[in-house]
Amino acid sequence: MSLFTLQKSASSCQARRGELQLPRATVQTPAFMPVGTQGTVKAMTFDEVWELGYRLILGNTYHLYLRPGSERVARFGGLPKFIGWDGAMLTDSGGYQVFSLKDLRKITEEGVTFRSTLDGSKHLFSPERVMEIEHELGADIIMAFDECPPYPATWQYTKDSLDRTLRWEERCLARHNALGGDSTGHLLFGIVQGGSYDDLRAQSALAVSAMDFPGIAIGGVSVGEPVEEMRRITALTTPLLPAHKPRYLMGVGTPSDLLDGIYYGIDMFDCVLPTRMARNGALYTSQGRINISNARWTDEAGPIDPECDCKVCRLHSAAYLRHLHQSKEILYSRLATYHNLAYYAKVMEGARAAIEQDTFPEYRRACYATWGLALPPDA
Amino acid sequence: MSLFTLQKSASSCQARRGELQLPRATVQTPAFMPVGTQGTVKAMTFDEVWELGYRLILGNTYHLYLRPGSERVARFGGLPKFIGWDGAMLTDSGGYQVFSLKDLRKITEEGVTFRSTLDGSKHLFSPERVMEIEHELGADIIMAFDECPPYPATWQYTKDSLDRTLRWEERCLARHNALGGDSTGHLLFGIVQGGSYDDLRAQSALAVSAMDFPGIAIGGVSVGEPVEEMRRITALTTPLLPAHKPRYLMGVGTPSDLLDGIYYGIDMFDCVLPTRMARNGALYTSQGRINISNARWTDEAGPIDPECDCKVCRLHSAAYLRHLHQSKEILYSRLATYHNLAYYAKVMEGARAAIEQDTFPEYRRACYATWGLALPPDA
Ligand SMILES: [Zn+2]
Ligand SMILES: [Zn+2]
Repeated sequence: MSLFTLQKSASSCQARRGELQLPRATVQTPAFMPVGTQGTVKAMTFDEVWELGYRLILGNTYHLYLRPGSERVARFGGLPKFIGWDGAMLTDSGGYQVFSLKDLRKITEEGVTFRSTLDGSKHLFSPERVMEIEHELGADIIMAFDECPPYPATWQYTKDSLDRTLRWEERCLARHNALGGDSTGHLLFGIVQGGSYDDLRAQSALAVSAMDFPGIAIGGVSVGEPVEEMRRITALTTPLLPAHKPRYLMGVGTPSDLLDGIYYGIDMFDCVLPTRMARNGALYTSQGRINISNARWTDEAGPIDPECDCKVCRLHSAAYLRHLHQSKEILYSRLATYHNLAYYAKVMEGARAAIEQDTFPEYRRACYATWGLALPPDA
Repeated sequence: MSLFTLQKSASSCQARRGELQLPRATVQTPAFMPVGTQGTVKAMTFDEVWELGYRLILGNTYHLYLRPGSERVARFGGLPKFIGWDGAMLTDSGGYQVFSLKDLRKITEEGVTFRSTLDGSKHLFSPERVMEIEHELGADIIMAFDECPPYPATWQYTKDSLDRTLRWEERCLARHNALGGDSTGHLLFGIVQGGSYDDLRAQSALAVSAMDFPGIAIGGVSVGEPVEEMRRITALTTPLLPAHKPRYLMGVGTPSDLLDGIYYGIDMFDCVLPTRMARNGALYTSQGRINISNARWTDEAGPIDPECDCKVCRLHSAAYLRHLHQSKEILYSRLATYHNLAYYAKVMEGARAAIEQDTFPEYRRACYATWGLALPPDA
């Protein structure tokens, strides 16, 4: 059985409609994956994540390796079992987190040594070690260990980093296969890097495409570059990737970023935005992003989004949500996160339906209009 | 229709089984009321509070008066409507909170002037003003404005305070009746005070019993006095109260405190313990109180309470709850609060069933035994 079934391609853009058959769940694409950094989609129960239609969520290898520990998670039968999630999971490689440690880490050809932010203890993440850890965590999709260079970075730094990342990806594949390979139920995805340099992105896309990965991610985006840059990188990379493999744009993004990614041929996304922004007071709605701390909501008896039929919008007024936010109540974070994830699910559902009807560009344009945003020129 | 139906009295203790017919819900007694200080039972949705069987929850007049403001709440149709709760509510009088302000408040015969802890603004809580505020908040049961003296307090201070409280309760009744009285759907309960002095408690119980309140609370307990003191005050007060009115022991307590209160004839309780303790890591279980941060739970694959069939205990291991607690995740507070309120509901359900079968003393003894606590001598 093939992992990915491509069901429909748009006629006037790169958008694709497909299905991911993962060991634990079938996922309709394009798909957004909520982030469950420490083994929980912050403020949500898994029942709620499931009822919103999500079947694939993310876990962070760096955090879970340090606490509760990947060996412990393995003894509990893997991450989905440990946390009580019935759907599928994806773990990142921890690369992004350890590279962000700056003064606490050192990069060599072997891997990255770093000190734990929890207790100062010293650790090594090498391609081989990360494969072992991700097999212990036991997600359906596991990501290769790569370096995510900072933005901006020079061409030479990015080139050296990319070459090392390609060597690391080969080492990941070797150790992954020694551990049993994809037949263990843990599918290893490769990652395209290359910073903001077209030639390096192309080199990386072709090299990773030639390796034996069932899916391919575009990494090193959403790291501080302008959004035009992210669109350009996405647009130039996807045509170089094999059509029959799913494509995952890492760490992206806002609702408009998702539609842009789909437009350029992306099948999977993950981002902390809907959950993190919710807790900070920002709600994504059919009228664009609103901030619940704004005084205009103080006496609003209607919901935060009149177009939304989620449980929160059906049951509660914007005034009540604002009261909970001002009172720093946990229920605020719960309701806000639920709505944002409901809204993301709705945007993605609309995108999938539009691709099926071959009206995705019109759908994207209509969404941009209701959000009050200008549609960007083609990249 | 009478507010309170007394269905069964125990033969060998003061325990009673009854039913409270409130404007918004019928409540089986003895009943525990979860506390929703700022218009939310912390970390819970109202759906969850409801599915656990609770039909009556508390709101705090002091907090809600300051934010979002009782006038605003009134414009939204009252507190239950504003917060989206389909059951009944009770508001306290705010007395306990303003008296706790110490340096920020001043007591006169007129009432208490205090400064807001939110913005320093100056306010007056008089019996009349509090009645107006509670009518605006619009709960099914509203509490008279009383002084809750500190523990310990001298006899003279307590006597003067009690006499003023009795005058305040008369003024509450007068303003409540001017506002339409109990027929407005807001039933005014009186409060017995008198500190730890038997003669003052008796004076207060008789005086409040003679006033036209449909229900009577025992206040000024759970303010730092030894638990024996609380039992003694409860035991001496309830026989002085009219049998046909519901009796509410304010701010109490632990599961064993609830069983003690029921034993001495109490029908209603409220307490922040199950919700607050949950967030701090303390879980009430059939094996007694446990602390989830204890290392013994690190690898526990079973639930926090093997005897509990609540959603949390069915779906999650103690190890996962501990991981969420150590990671300071919101989901920890959600799951812990849910379990504690489920456990409180179960203890109360057991108590009601035992009274029906006239086996309450045996039930109380058995609970104390499973909790590993010594049954106290009769007060
Ligand atoms: Zn909504
Ligand atoms: Zn439980």
